[in-house]
Amino acid sequence: MNQPTNNNPTTNRQVRLVSRPEGIPQAENFAITTEPVPTIGEGEILVHNIFLSVEPAMRGWVSNVANYSEPVAINGVMRSFATGQIVESQHPDFLPDEYVTGLFGWQDYAVVNPEKIIRKVDDNQLPISTSLGVLGLNGMTAYFGLLDVGQPKAGETVVVSTAAGAVGSCVGQIAKIKGCQTVGITGGPTKVELCRDQFQYDRAIDYKSENFEQELADACPQGVDVYFDNTGGKITDAVLSHLNVGARIVICGTASVSNWNPHPLGPRVERQILVNRARMQGVLIFDYADRYQEAVDALTPWINDGLIHYEEDILQGIEQAPDAIAGLYRGENLGKRLIKP
Amino acid sequence: MNQPTNNNPTTNRQVRLVSRPEGIPQAENFAITTEPVPTIGEGEILVHNIFLSVEPAMRGWVSNVANYSEPVAINGVMRSFATGQIVESQHPDFLPDEYVTGLFGWQDYAVVNPEKIIRKVDDNQLPISTSLGVLGLNGMTAYFGLLDVGQPKAGETVVVSTAAGAVGSCVGQIAKIKGCQTVGITGGPTKVELCRDQFQYDRAIDYKSENFEQELADACPQGVDVYFDNTGGKITDAVLSHLNVGARIVICGTASVSNWNPHPLGPRVERQILVNRARMQGVLIFDYADRYQEAVDALTPWINDGLIHYEEDILQGIEQAPDAIAGLYRGENLGKRLIKP
Repeated sequence: MNQPTNNNPTTNRQVRLVSRPEGIPQAENFAITTEPVPTIGEGEILVHNIFLSVEPAMRGWVSNVANYSEPVAINGVMRSFATGQIVESQHPDFLPDEYVTGLFGWQDYAVVNPEKIIRKVDDNQLPISTSLGVLGLNGMTAYFGLLDVGQPKAGETVVVSTAAGAVGSCVGQIAKIKGCQTVGITGGPTKVELCRDQFQYDRAIDYKSENFEQELADACPQGVDVYFDNTGGKITDAVLSHLNVGARIVICGTASVSNWNPHPLGPRVERQILVNRARMQGVLIFDYADRYQEAVDALTPWINDGLIHYEEDILQGIEQAPDAIAGLYRGENLGKRLIKP
Repeated sequence: MNQPTNNNPTTNRQVRLVSRPEGIPQAENFAITTEPVPTIGEGEILVHNIFLSVEPAMRGWVSNVANYSEPVAINGVMRSFATGQIVESQHPDFLPDEYVTGLFGWQDYAVVNPEKIIRKVDDNQLPISTSLGVLGLNGMTAYFGLLDVGQPKAGETVVVSTAAGAVGSCVGQIAKIKGCQTVGITGGPTKVELCRDQFQYDRAIDYKSENFEQELADACPQGVDVYFDNTGGKITDAVLSHLNVGARIVICGTASVSNWNPHPLGPRVERQILVNRARMQGVLIFDYADRYQEAVDALTPWINDGLIHYEEDILQGIEQAPDAIAGLYRGENLGKRLIKP
């Protein structure tokens, strides 16, 4: 483990949600406050966060619109995955100096019980930051979403939106490992190049291109068997017009739809689903909690063998947190966005 | 078998598609022609049709829009399922006087090879007409669509659109047999009553009601676990707002959408699919060709035991055929529509 930690803190900086955004959370929806480092009670664990995660899904977590979790409370610490080192423990299963990853929030220190901990982090040669990306929920989402829901077969065409992102880049590479033809959809020439060179997509195209629809058709001469969808919206509309019979559409995120209230309109999907006997299904990684280790065990050797590459975008300082989600939606990151507080 | 047949014909009346409709096929898109009864060659079978089927899916069969089958040719005999009696056979597996069901077309006589025959009809006490409805592709679609794709569990809420139709009525009753709460959506008070009294739905509601959305919410106090969708469109939009986590949506038909060109708009589904980890999947009965007998074997005792009721709407005379599809879309039939030529 190559990360510095500070075991002699005096204060705990926390990023709190101070107002509820309409749509994408912006810097002004958050404030940074300071309080003393908390003390722990029976069965509790004090974790010093080393990396905080920034996720597109955070837009949903702070929204009042129906979701898979309770919205973050106003003036509450922003919900977040994080990886840190145990400073103090009153639980027999967790010892000081161990590294753990879990729902620790955007703060320097978290008092947690074991239910908040996803797993201990002990990934051999891999940097600890991977526990929040390619070996974190992003990589696990790619693994279960593609293999369990998408069920790609060798020779099939797999299309991925936000193909250069933390989830998408992993999806594309797992599909390649499984013998599929991979087509990445991303935004801008830098990410297109990253998709081709780093993430080994067979073809990568830019959704911002004037000729996007034609380029998509050219990239999928055999049609689309699996579409791993991180965007929804117009990109999805375009991909759905190329479905093969029996196609699987994995709905993992809706990054391109900036607001669900009022409910946006799009082309009706019923007929394409029917005619192609296609299957469209949502995936949420928390449903796979009892199988996380399976994904880590599968992904680790692929990473070590150079079959899966990953990129990280590490922001320095907790003061970067308030604008970090908005930045994701501006598309300014290359790879998994983290904050080193 | 209680159906009269005429084995001494002199002419073969045929209903031909003479122009391609935009949307729902109307009477003027068809013409009735007459030719001599055909003769058969080696390996062929001459079938005298006793009942011709009328299906909502025929709209798709005559359309040039991408579909699961080649469009019926202009001036070709209208594609149709039918049940008839063998008049003459030059194939060792099929004998004169046997009853068979298959793709025989809207005509008095069909010359077919065994590939056009779905099965021999020998359903004990049940009328031969059931071979085109509750024991035909309608019942089979209900059986495989609900059980294979929808996978209902006892205690779950199953919602069915076109609940009084040939497929929908069977879906509701199979769901009831499986211990589900059943909610039927249909059009008009007569069909609502039919759903409640004849098809044993726990609740039935009228999509034409001013308070349809509220009535739907009241009918599904536990949310929706399985939606068997024969309509698409606004009915589907309303049902999707009540999905439970893990819900299954079986897309079987799009009867409420009168035209797919230009592509109609509706509320985007991505977020509901994602948040509920729902699965939306199309079903086409032809994919189950090697399992038809399984459905017939399961449905027959349920019908004989009074667990599945069915209605038929039998039009007398082949001259009723040209307007018969449009009539389905006008909602004028109660139960499976057939033509007795």
